[in-house]
Amino acid sequence: MDKTHVRVGIVGISGYSGIETARLVAAHPVLSLAAAVSDKWAGARVGDHLPVGGAAADVVVVRQADAAMTFAGLGIVFLCTPAEVSIALAPVALEAGCRVVDLSGGFRLAPELYPRWYGFTHPNAALLATACYSMPECGASGSVRDARLVSNPGCFATVATLGALALLRAGVVEPAGLIIDAASGTTGAGKKASEDFSFSEVDGDFRAYRVLKHQHTPEIERALSLAGHGAGHVTFTSHLLPVRRGILATVYGRLRAGKTGADAAAAMTAFVAGKPFLRATKPDAVRLQAVVGTNRVLLGADADPERGVAIAFAAIDNLVKGAAGQAVQNANLMLGLAETIGLDGLPGSAP
Amino acid sequence: MDKTHVRVGIVGISGYSGIETARLVAAHPVLSLAAAVSDKWAGARVGDHLPVGGAAADVVVVRQADAAMTFAGLGIVFLCTPAEVSIALAPVALEAGCRVVDLSGGFRLAPELYPRWYGFTHPNAALLATACYSMPECGASGSVRDARLVSNPGCFATVATLGALALLRAGVVEPAGLIIDAASGTTGAGKKASEDFSFSEVDGDFRAYRVLKHQHTPEIERALSLAGHGAGHVTFTSHLLPVRRGILATVYGRLRAGKTGADAAAAMTAFVAGKPFLRATKPDAVRLQAVVGTNRVLLGADADPERGVAIAFAAIDNLVKGAAGQAVQNANLMLGLAETIGLDGLPGSAP
Amino acid sequence: MDKTHVRVGIVGISGYSGIETARLVAAHPVLSLAAAVSDKWAGARVGDHLPVGGAAADVVVVRQADAAMTFAGLGIVFLCTPAEVSIALAPVALEAGCRVVDLSGGFRLAPELYPRWYGFTHPNAALLATACYSMPECGASGSVRDARLVSNPGCFATVATLGALALLRAGVVEPAGLIIDAASGTTGAGKKASEDFSFSEVDGDFRAYRVLKHQHTPEIERALSLAGHGAGHVTFTSHLLPVRRGILATVYGRLRAGKTGADAAAAMTAFVAGKPFLRATKPDAVRLQAVVGTNRVLLGADADPERGVAIAFAAIDNLVKGAAGQAVQNANLMLGLAETIGLDGLPGSAP
Amino acid sequence: MDKTHVRVGIVGISGYSGIETARLVAAHPVLSLAAAVSDKWAGARVGDHLPVGGAAADVVVVRQADAAMTFAGLGIVFLCTPAEVSIALAPVALEAGCRVVDLSGGFRLAPELYPRWYGFTHPNAALLATACYSMPECGASGSVRDARLVSNPGCFATVATLGALALLRAGVVEPAGLIIDAASGTTGAGKKASEDFSFSEVDGDFRAYRVLKHQHTPEIERALSLAGHGAGHVTFTSHLLPVRRGILATVYGRLRAGKTGADAAAAMTAFVAGKPFLRATKPDAVRLQAVVGTNRVLLGADADPERGVAIAFAAIDNLVKGAAGQAVQNANLMLGLAETIGLDGLPGSAP
Repeated sequence: MDKTHVRVGIVGISGYSGIETARLVAAHPVLSLAAAVSDKWAGARVGDHLPVGGAAADVVVVRQADAAMTFAGLGIVFLCTPAEVSIALAPVALEAGCRVVDLSGGFRLAPELYPRWYGFTHPNAALLATACYSMPECGASGSVRDARLVSNPGCFATVATLGALALLRAGVVEPAGLIIDAASGTTGAGKKASEDFSFSEVDGDFRAYRVLKHQHTPEIERALSLAGHGAGHVTFTSHLLPVRRGILATVYGRLRAGKTGADAAAAMTAFVAGKPFLRATKPDAVRLQAVVGTNRVLLGADADPERGVAIAFAAIDNLVKGAAGQAVQNANLMLGLAETIGLDGLPGSAP
Repeated sequence: MDKTHVRVGIVGISGYSGIETARLVAAHPVLSLAAAVSDKWAGARVGDHLPVGGAAADVVVVRQADAAMTFAGLGIVFLCTPAEVSIALAPVALEAGCRVVDLSGGFRLAPELYPRWYGFTHPNAALLATACYSMPECGASGSVRDARLVSNPGCFATVATLGALALLRAGVVEPAGLIIDAASGTTGAGKKASEDFSFSEVDGDFRAYRVLKHQHTPEIERALSLAGHGAGHVTFTSHLLPVRRGILATVYGRLRAGKTGADAAAAMTAFVAGKPFLRATKPDAVRLQAVVGTNRVLLGADADPERGVAIAFAAIDNLVKGAAGQAVQNANLMLGLAETIGLDGLPGSAP
Repeated sequence: MDKTHVRVGIVGISGYSGIETARLVAAHPVLSLAAAVSDKWAGARVGDHLPVGGAAADVVVVRQADAAMTFAGLGIVFLCTPAEVSIALAPVALEAGCRVVDLSGGFRLAPELYPRWYGFTHPNAALLATACYSMPECGASGSVRDARLVSNPGCFATVATLGALALLRAGVVEPAGLIIDAASGTTGAGKKASEDFSFSEVDGDFRAYRVLKHQHTPEIERALSLAGHGAGHVTFTSHLLPVRRGILATVYGRLRAGKTGADAAAAMTAFVAGKPFLRATKPDAVRLQAVVGTNRVLLGADADPERGVAIAFAAIDNLVKGAAGQAVQNANLMLGLAETIGLDGLPGSAP
Repeated sequence: MDKTHVRVGIVGISGYSGIETARLVAAHPVLSLAAAVSDKWAGARVGDHLPVGGAAADVVVVRQADAAMTFAGLGIVFLCTPAEVSIALAPVALEAGCRVVDLSGGFRLAPELYPRWYGFTHPNAALLATACYSMPECGASGSVRDARLVSNPGCFATVATLGALALLRAGVVEPAGLIIDAASGTTGAGKKASEDFSFSEVDGDFRAYRVLKHQHTPEIERALSLAGHGAGHVTFTSHLLPVRRGILATVYGRLRAGKTGADAAAAMTAFVAGKPFLRATKPDAVRLQAVVGTNRVLLGADADPERGVAIAFAAIDNLVKGAAGQAVQNANLMLGLAETIGLDGLPGSAP
């Protein structure tokens, strides 16, 4: 594949992760938007809805039923669609000769986990078996460089795994008994009409949701396992924040005998070395404003030997590192490009 | 009618203005909740959804189709429903011997204005002709004490009229050329699923809506006219704020020759005298936090003779003085009670 | 002491907990505001700053240096002041014959804990030994009815203890290894100028603070111990939410063998029985909007036997149940009144 | 001056406009950060505080008292400082051979206006007379290409002038009687400790400030005059929004006889033609989320002949088009570069 100019398509371009993928592609020196799919925007030009310039602005959005017609000649198709749609469209895009990055949960877990956590039996276990699950800083289930279908991690799984991995890898905490308490902005729920996600109900509020039933729980367990530091079961709780973007994960682990807060901080510093999107800082400096709009991950850790606990914090933008940014990072790896291309100049928007 | 114990019903109790009416009734020494109507909550007890105690908690909510069955024996029915529903149910409640306070726009305008501003021909002009439109501090279209059907003003009309009236009444501004620029919290749009009112779309945003087409424009004109200071046409613009409750109106008028900022401030001070819910203050102290949760109206005014303009500010809680609170205030007047009963102990919630 | 009319004073009336105490006193049928202290508002009438009516509005605020002059004839003094100020003023108020409710941390812990957690040596251990620490639903260190000096619990300690106690008491979780993850609104930090708490820095953000160093950690341990279910050390983390009011605590405990989610939920239901301000509900219904403006506590619990963890949620308004409301509740108990007097009619302000 | 590589300095880099300027310079292909001044960050590396890479990260921040030492060899100095500081430092930078873009109000008005609107007598009227005030889409007081000192417009003046100019230029409205009602996010007030701008006071609130006294009023009058469509006096009111970034201006003008809403919309469409950062859309699509993070200006207009009023809306990001972005745009013009260089790839951050 040509490494200097790759035409891409985005299915589900009118959702938050689709919009974000389009923005990142527009600013990418190698990728260029050549096809866009969305029932909601069908018939309009991409430039009618998004502030992109050049040829991308003139791409006409087609309906999902016509998605296959747009796939010819694309190097990569980003599926920014619900799991069921991704499962249906991935084989169509592959058949057309495209490589696929799927941002949904459609190809993230072992098939036997789908009924419990996603509520359906996976209809294409054969394709699922070929999917390469890739969280670049943690590991992958195969060779991303060679993969035809890459399964992009979920936002909670990304922040939780990145928050926990350093302490596990350095032996600061016991593998068992990890607790991950996360809080997410509202864009994680998608762009849709919902009374529960209305401004009147969310502003001034904070609450947990899908308690002990969140489908990212087994994904965190898988990601840690792929990284070689599987902890068996983890406990994961998600809360809804009155912010638009960003997730903060607070990770609690059982401190190993003799380990200290300094060991926890040192583990984090060692973990981020050589990983361009990761940065270690003090625990109370790990905050959403510092990562929103970027592909960065802020990390911090401390421990309390008296209480036998280590604590780690991780912050990401759920739409960038938690979705579109990591998808482009994976696309870079698929193409043999540096993983930071198109992602290191994002200026962020804080405050 | 007994002035010490009046049984009331609330139709549309599951919406924001219905919920607020229920709260105020629960804290009212004379009114008691005896009937509740809502398709959404049908079959549940009021206490399952709202933190009210006593007998009100045990009132069972019935479907709208069964509303008529609940009206027998009620002194007052509050219609917290869309205009079309109010127009259909008001005669039913009146027929059952109840008096009615309608919080919708169903009985606020002259019949000929409905097609343009509400988009439908009013189906019951005869009943409309009997409705008493009442904004207590400004005036009414008849005797509230004797009215069977009281039309409760809209939130924007309340804040705009109260903001403009003092300057008109004192002759500080010309009657013509009034401009009213208002900004409202999201609960004004009701409790419903809507992408436009989702947290992700509203937070961090500010925009106008229904520009030059808002149905409260003719209502402001009517309220000013009833107050004896009609200004002919006014220009009214509404904006959507990323807050849940509250409306601030900024009123611009053409300063009469020889008038000053001191005249504008004095007009406001004179206007609030003897009106228990109104308070005059400095223009930059007229703010939402100071009124949210209460039936109060904060008012302030100044003028710039060099530019020939007077400016006034008014702030209310859209769900209290702009809806449920004013409805209870009107109910107090209907019953011959002091208008402040049940409304002066509201502690507010600022900050 | 007369139980039908008790004159009270509020020291620190211009802060958030002072303002809230004044509001609750204004709506209380027995307590009446007779003295107010604040350097910031000194010389003004209470009614110039707060929407209270009657005689309370005419109380003139005096400087803190003159506080002692106002104490004569007061039944109860509420100290809404920093710990150091409370420690200095409590003996002055007691000397004047008043009973005292202190809302600060000045009398909450054993003296030997002050250097580590508050950063100073307690200067009045003798008085500290006489203080009655009282969290009404959990227990007290003495007889509240007879106490001269009541130490009112901190907001985090209140929500954390109430969240954890049911599971401990019912034997659903092991006493050891409790983790409490809390998120608080900004009013918990007080009314002051601070770049860290500016809107520009807090909006859209979420982060932890005082990680592993929060002074409410030993207070939670003390409160659980007083309740007879001390767990030894607990791990407590606080986060800053972009909301004004409210705290949500998420409590993780190690599930005892054989226990289930149903056991956790049943423990919560049993715990709230007979406690008028507590209510048990589903975990994802425990939210800030449902408690803000009230003295209520919402509680919920579940468990995951596969992961060996129980989880509980508790929500309060940090300024009401977490400060002024619990202070009035304690004052009611000191006076032999029903604990709900003046607190059960609060209408809340949600949404 | 070399057009391919220009070293720049930023004075006041730790404030919001300084931080934003640093971000934009970091992403600019021609400009490179070579000096940074701030008392707050003095001694640190720029990379310790901002997510910039490359050589910029290693620039050591110096104290303001040492600013002069950093000016040697810089092509352009951006003064992101209060007016008084800019007035003092601009001659120093010019003396050192630098060209200057001043983001403060220090060089925006005629000298006789400073006492009334800024509260001080301008101490350097000679230098003020040489300053080139430049709002690129509207006009400039001299040749930007040749200017040594460019005065960058204020945020309110930018959005108000851009909102009003099209209607004036096309003769849709009378020149007299313009009213501009604006609402701004909190970053416009700067990065500082302030109780008035604390989250607890701003969230859920909306109020006007500096009513009839705002120093941008005469600047709007000057900018319109420079554009050849001076309207004499305008009335300008600013409100504080509970958002971090963005300003929306609502402009009211007196509609000329025979003009319609279509004329107003057409005027806007004509106005934006050929101006790369301006875009015309429907009035209710002019919103903050669509411009935040970018240098774009959204514009819309309509009119009501019955009420004799035209209305226009304009939205900008106060830190980009209202400050740092326009400063870089002016720097591009000073250097003879295309005005969009370094500014057209900003991805924004909505939602």
